[in-house]
Amino acid sequence: MVTPLVKYFQFNKRKITEPPGTLIYVGEEKTEKVGITVFTFDETNYQERKVDDLNEIVIEKDNPTITWINIDGIHDTKIIEAIGNKFNLHPLILEDIMNSEQRIKGEELEDSIFLVLKMIYYRPNTKNIAIEQISIIFGSNFVISFQECPGDIFDLIRDRIRTGKGRFRKAGADFLAYSLIDTIVDNYFIILESFGDRIEEIENDLITNPVPETLQIIQTLKREIIILRKSVSPLREVINNLERAESELINKSTKIYLRDVYDHIVNVIDTEELFRDLISGNLDIYLSSLSRKMNEIMKVLTIIATIFIPLTFISGVYGMNFSHMPELDWTWGYPLILLVMGGVGIVMLIYFWRKKWM
Amino acid sequence: MVTPLVKYFQFNKRKITEPPGTLIYVGEEKTEKVGITVFTFDETNYQERKVDDLNEIVIEKDNPTITWINIDGIHDTKIIEAIGNKFNLHPLILEDIMNSEQRIKGEELEDSIFLVLKMIYYRPNTKNIAIEQISIIFGSNFVISFQECPGDIFDLIRDRIRTGKGRFRKAGADFLAYSLIDTIVDNYFIILESFGDRIEEIENDLITNPVPETLQIIQTLKREIIILRKSVSPLREVINNLERAESELINKSTKIYLRDVYDHIVNVIDTEELFRDLISGNLDIYLSSLSRKMNEIMKVLTIIATIFIPLTFISGVYGMNFSHMPELDWTWGYPLILLVMGGVGIVMLIYFWRKKWM
Amino acid sequence: MVTPLVKYFQFNKRKITEPPGTLIYVGEEKTEKVGITVFTFDETNYQERKVDDLNEIVIEKDNPTITWINIDGIHDTKIIEAIGNKFNLHPLILEDIMNSEQRIKGEELEDSIFLVLKMIYYRPNTKNIAIEQISIIFGSNFVISFQECPGDIFDLIRDRIRTGKGRFRKAGADFLAYSLIDTIVDNYFIILESFGDRIEEIENDLITNPVPETLQIIQTLKREIIILRKSVSPLREVINNLERAESELINKSTKIYLRDVYDHIVNVIDTEELFRDLISGNLDIYLSSLSRKMNEIMKVLTIIATIFIPLTFISGVYGMNFSHMPELDWTWGYPLILLVMGGVGIVMLIYFWRKKWM
Amino acid sequence: MVTPLVKYFQFNKRKITEPPGTLIYVGEEKTEKVGITVFTFDETNYQERKVDDLNEIVIEKDNPTITWINIDGIHDTKIIEAIGNKFNLHPLILEDIMNSEQRIKGEELEDSIFLVLKMIYYRPNTKNIAIEQISIIFGSNFVISFQECPGDIFDLIRDRIRTGKGRFRKAGADFLAYSLIDTIVDNYFIILESFGDRIEEIENDLITNPVPETLQIIQTLKREIIILRKSVSPLREVINNLERAESELINKSTKIYLRDVYDHIVNVIDTEELFRDLISGNLDIYLSSLSRKMNEIMKVLTIIATIFIPLTFISGVYGMNFSHMPELDWTWGYPLILLVMGGVGIVMLIYFWRKKWM
Amino acid sequence: MVTPLVKYFQFNKRKITEPPGTLIYVGEEKTEKVGITVFTFDETNYQERKVDDLNEIVIEKDNPTITWINIDGIHDTKIIEAIGNKFNLHPLILEDIMNSEQRIKGEELEDSIFLVLKMIYYRPNTKNIAIEQISIIFGSNFVISFQECPGDIFDLIRDRIRTGKGRFRKAGADFLAYSLIDTIVDNYFIILESFGDRIEEIENDLITNPVPETLQIIQTLKREIIILRKSVSPLREVINNLERAESELINKSTKIYLRDVYDHIVNVIDTEELFRDLISGNLDIYLSSLSRKMNEIMKVLTIIATIFIPLTFISGVYGMNFSHMPELDWTWGYPLILLVMGGVGIVMLIYFWRKKWM
Repeated sequence: MVTPLVKYFQFNKRKITEPPGTLIYVGEEKTEKVGITVFTFDETNYQERKVDDLNEIVIEKDNPTITWINIDGIHDTKIIEAIGNKFNLHPLILEDIMNSEQRIKGEELEDSIFLVLKMIYYRPNTKNIAIEQISIIFGSNFVISFQECPGDIFDLIRDRIRTGKGRFRKAGADFLAYSLIDTIVDNYFIILESFGDRIEEIENDLITNPVPETLQIIQTLKREIIILRKSVSPLREVINNLERAESELINKSTKIYLRDVYDHIVNVIDTEELFRDLISGNLDIYLSSLSRKMNEIMKVLTIIATIFIPLTFISGVYGMNFSHMPELDWTWGYPLILLVMGGVGIVMLIYFWRKKWM
Repeated sequence: MVTPLVKYFQFNKRKITEPPGTLIYVGEEKTEKVGITVFTFDETNYQERKVDDLNEIVIEKDNPTITWINIDGIHDTKIIEAIGNKFNLHPLILEDIMNSEQRIKGEELEDSIFLVLKMIYYRPNTKNIAIEQISIIFGSNFVISFQECPGDIFDLIRDRIRTGKGRFRKAGADFLAYSLIDTIVDNYFIILESFGDRIEEIENDLITNPVPETLQIIQTLKREIIILRKSVSPLREVINNLERAESELINKSTKIYLRDVYDHIVNVIDTEELFRDLISGNLDIYLSSLSRKMNEIMKVLTIIATIFIPLTFISGVYGMNFSHMPELDWTWGYPLILLVMGGVGIVMLIYFWRKKWM
Repeated sequence: MVTPLVKYFQFNKRKITEPPGTLIYVGEEKTEKVGITVFTFDETNYQERKVDDLNEIVIEKDNPTITWINIDGIHDTKIIEAIGNKFNLHPLILEDIMNSEQRIKGEELEDSIFLVLKMIYYRPNTKNIAIEQISIIFGSNFVISFQECPGDIFDLIRDRIRTGKGRFRKAGADFLAYSLIDTIVDNYFIILESFGDRIEEIENDLITNPVPETLQIIQTLKREIIILRKSVSPLREVINNLERAESELINKSTKIYLRDVYDHIVNVIDTEELFRDLISGNLDIYLSSLSRKMNEIMKVLTIIATIFIPLTFISGVYGMNFSHMPELDWTWGYPLILLVMGGVGIVMLIYFWRKKWM
Repeated sequence: MVTPLVKYFQFNKRKITEPPGTLIYVGEEKTEKVGITVFTFDETNYQERKVDDLNEIVIEKDNPTITWINIDGIHDTKIIEAIGNKFNLHPLILEDIMNSEQRIKGEELEDSIFLVLKMIYYRPNTKNIAIEQISIIFGSNFVISFQECPGDIFDLIRDRIRTGKGRFRKAGADFLAYSLIDTIVDNYFIILESFGDRIEEIENDLITNPVPETLQIIQTLKREIIILRKSVSPLREVINNLERAESELINKSTKIYLRDVYDHIVNVIDTEELFRDLISGNLDIYLSSLSRKMNEIMKVLTIIATIFIPLTFISGVYGMNFSHMPELDWTWGYPLILLVMGGVGIVMLIYFWRKKWM
Repeated sequence: MVTPLVKYFQFNKRKITEPPGTLIYVGEEKTEKVGITVFTFDETNYQERKVDDLNEIVIEKDNPTITWINIDGIHDTKIIEAIGNKFNLHPLILEDIMNSEQRIKGEELEDSIFLVLKMIYYRPNTKNIAIEQISIIFGSNFVISFQECPGDIFDLIRDRIRTGKGRFRKAGADFLAYSLIDTIVDNYFIILESFGDRIEEIENDLITNPVPETLQIIQTLKREIIILRKSVSPLREVINNLERAESELINKSTKIYLRDVYDHIVNVIDTEELFRDLISGNLDIYLSSLSRKMNEIMKVLTIIATIFIPLTFISGVYGMNFSHMPELDWTWGYPLILLVMGGVGIVMLIYFWRKKWM
């Protein structure tokens, strides 16, 4: 079945009646408690804890220790507001964070950078994709990341902090932010891989056994690719701007890594375009295979009908009850007429043979 | 039924014979009295009244009190002219206001900014959309808004002024103008939602029961989306220019809000493009489902016809009245021929089975 | 009938053998005498006359009196040459004026501005559109306009000069030139209106009674819209350049009016694009309605054939002349077989009913 | 027949194994002797001769006499090399000249300008188009032109030099180069005219008698238009750059003429785009006329079959040989059954009539 | 058979779990030993050897002798790492080299330039194309090239070094790098040629004998052209940037050659676009030939059926067993009815003839 459209696009009417800057969560309804995980680390140490009260977290401006606050859930107005107060964020930024329909964007704030990205998952059991909005705010020594629901996508990064693997512990907050982005972008390749697998499946089906369902699978893929494009295309510009930004928040050494992410994004977009071409090619094959099948059926009908209709007519003629039908009394009338019928049939078969209908 | 085109595009011939700058109302004919509502407010007080004579309104240049004049109807030449005189507007601006076919635009005038926008309504009873032109002029301490017909779209804003909710009473005329724009843009999401619902409906129909009417619904949607695009696309540029304008009329704090509106507009355009893709995908499904249905019908015809046409021929042969047909006198002739017929039929069924036509 | 292509595009072979700058008329052959009308006017007076000899016209450089020379016909080499000498124009400019296939363009000359525009008429009797090239040259106190054939399109402007209505008599040559352009652009709206009417007609036809002729009307419309686009699109750039030109020939007050014309042109282009979308939508409806009709026909054939072919077979069986066919001698054989036939027919009808073919 | 693709695109494998800058002729094999024609002329005199040895030609740097060397054939490595030495040209330029697959381009060299253009001929006998590469190098007082094969395309220019007609003799080498370009561009109009004629023919055919061959003619035209576009589109940029070049080799007075050529090129491109639209419109008509014809055929089949199949069944019933068929013995049985049959037929005809199938 | 998609796009999941900059080979699994070939040459001498240990290679900074290291295989992490250490390359560069899915790119590093290109082979035996990634790093006096697998593509260049042919031995490292690029780009023409041949084959097939397999060949070609485009399009920008780079690593004389390569790339892209147009044209021909064939089959069926069905009906009428059928006893009844049947048949044939169905 084609995934219902409404899954991907929810427009919350209630929102519209409120003045801009009002904090209202836009997305699937949720009641789970929002989890807040805090990592503090420098080159030598790291600390990891779950907090309930944001006031527990103290970030000193000139402290080289980096604090990463990860918030699992964007539906709790109070927590978002507290973050806003603590880090001095404009109400519109907070509104963007809480709106799971927010467009991908990057904004340089006074002393931090704000990013909205989309994580895309492929759910093998329901065979469709899910979108999750990830917002990231990072300053000179802190990173705040907002996930729509608790998930393990950043576990790899947590492990690297814990083990001190990679450049994490030595590098700044900008490198941590980059790593979060990189994780999200790497995930797109998994989606692309699943697309590739499904396109291959379709292609095999089209050749061996084209069925009506194929069209629906093609349509589902087509729209999932559209959704992927919508989530990735604007990101190219965002990362490009980040790389070129003259902000002091991004070190030169991190920019090389941002360039690398940019390359990956371009690669995703290219592959996505390629997949679109492939899918529309498959649609052509499918439609023309319908036509071809029709032709085949028509040919059989035509051959059978055009051979037997005239023969039936001949038999009909000699089934008439006229008193004076001299042929009927000939001794060889019956075999003769059978011969004539056979002849007519053979002539027609030759005709069809020549027309390459057989 | 497909909404008649002419509803959306009226070209008034009479207009063309007049010199440019002549004030003539272009739009549906109307005779209602034009209502003028005036709000004056500052941080502490607000006053609300309906006026008949524009001379009652006095706006002092350096007074921080903000005056919002809302005019419900653009068909009364006298009132528009009076506004023109009072606020010293070029005749071409007045002409634009009175022309309900005016293109969306933003213009910086000497000491005010002029905007033309399109409000879009979805009318559930007639199941089509309606366009209303909204013109806005704002200066340092006044906002004039022109609606084609009296409506309640700005009631939310009136309430916020009355209750002092949001930033309205504290902020300047630019924030009020922004709020009007924001209300119009927010409304596009309602339209998009209705589009989303109808596309979902179509998709369900296509799967469960594709009917010819579906094509017309698809076409109606397609053209309504075209109309939406025509109303929204130029707005992106207009708001972008407004945000980047160096005019003293727009405060820096308001620009952040304009950026937010800009984001919303881009979101509307993106979703509209997505919907266009989805609809053209549905068209493909519809057309191919027609083909497929045809194939199915042809298959049944072919199976029935190709099985019985040869059998009928055989029965025809033994219905001939030749005197010398030895088979007719065989005791087992009849059962034998029935067996032959059954055999022919079964062979054909097997053939069709193998061809996957059954 | 589809309007023959050659009507719109004539490539004059003879021309190619001549060196560039040679004055040769390119267009339909004509022999009428070219009419020259001269208007001279200032704020208080105006004079109107027809002249034969261009030497009668004297234009003094610093005289504020404005002279408008309108030339009805571009096929007389001598007159064009005389104009060229009098106003010191480059041979290539004269060549452009005489070439009715000239592309739309605007050029700033030494002390004048040269414009080539296309007037488009809709001829209701032949139901097709005609293109006429209008060239305009204007300097500080003169305007020369060239029409391909005598026409009344500028009569409105003549009237306004005579009555002193609008800003004509007070404004300069640039405003007169603007007025000529404005008249031509306003005319496009009449064409658009006729397109709108015809598209609406087609849509009604498609719903009530789709006929093969519809396709040809759609094709004619499609190509007329292409021709309109070809005539209007480059104009946008021309007028935009004119508005931004730093030439002293165009007053600031006139530029506001040029902006207005620009808006109109953009509106024409937008509507034309919309019409193209609508027409291609209609093409889809038409083609799918062909498919649908085919399906309907096939269904009837299939139902009739699949019901009666087996029944005919049964009757054929009992029409065979075998000596030993016990059923034939049963007393209730005939009614029984009729019942069997009826049963077969009803079963099939139920099958079709369930398949939603009826 | 569709013109074989390979005619237009030859990729010479041999070439690839040689280092860049190696002079190898790429194109159809040729053995004719290369003809070299030299024109020298100034305002008062001109001299015309054929030479074998390039050393005969002496060009003094400051001599105002203009030398035009026309070379008919690019397959003789020695001549091209000699030119290269004489005029001090980079090996890559010589390689470009000898490669008949070279892309259109314009390059400013040290003291000359190098252009590669494509001449397009329409060959009425084989009904297809041929491409010839023309390279032009011009300096302050010389022009060298390379044609692939001897031809008369530049005869017009030779005549103008001989008779001193036009500006040729007075103007510089740049004007001669311009004239060569102009001749090539003018020739495109002849091609466009032939396209126009053939499109008109197709349109007439489509209306009066659509045949399968039409599709092939449409395809041939489509690809010829593609080839034309490939030859003309890059030229726009080349001429535009030439016009804007600050090179001393191009006089201001010549630039006006280059602007004129530029206009012609834009006109060719516009018309070519128009033709593409027309042709794809014709393809639509053709395909839908196939569908329509099919419908018509099906209708006839359906009408005949659905009328006679039930009637045949009725006659079959009364052809059965049951002993007890009371109707058979009725005196009016036969006329009655004929009436019933007629009735059934008429009812069906009325049904078809109402369905608008007849 | 359509080449499986997965051949061209492998997304290595394992990779994603590693931090960026980790060296992991992405591509087909391989175990062959990586071959390292080193060429050192200056104007007078050259030396050629295979090495195992990179430490054997010594490159002195100011030595004019040029060293070319060619590495046949990118799957050995140790060698890539050693190169990285020796030439001081960023881990991300090394990662790019080892990732056979890397996008085409060019990057200016501190004292070298890094390029990623794609070599494309056509394998005649499997009738599909293969992609190989070639990375090139070059500095002032060294060039390092990485091939995915050992191959002979650069043998031409090796020969030229050995024989001192061309400019190789005299020119710098930049010219050697250019030569490698040139070899790769020249190879695209071989691919284009094979495409051209196959398109021509398809066109001949379509005319003489359209078969279902043609569609699959068309689809394969279409996707191979997509892959070619993906490999060539970004290269245009890369070479353009290289040509315009202000790096000291590229001599002015080499830039002329880079311009030449750029021209070739544009030519490849143009031809590839042309091929795409041709192929989609062929798809149209194929699909419409299916329709046409269908029509032809239908026509034969219709003619046979519509002629014989009424005749069969007539014979059926006179096969009825009514006691009172006066015609049956007429002496000339039988010949008369045969005449009637013949007449009906002839009338129908004339009808079909006129409808141009025969």
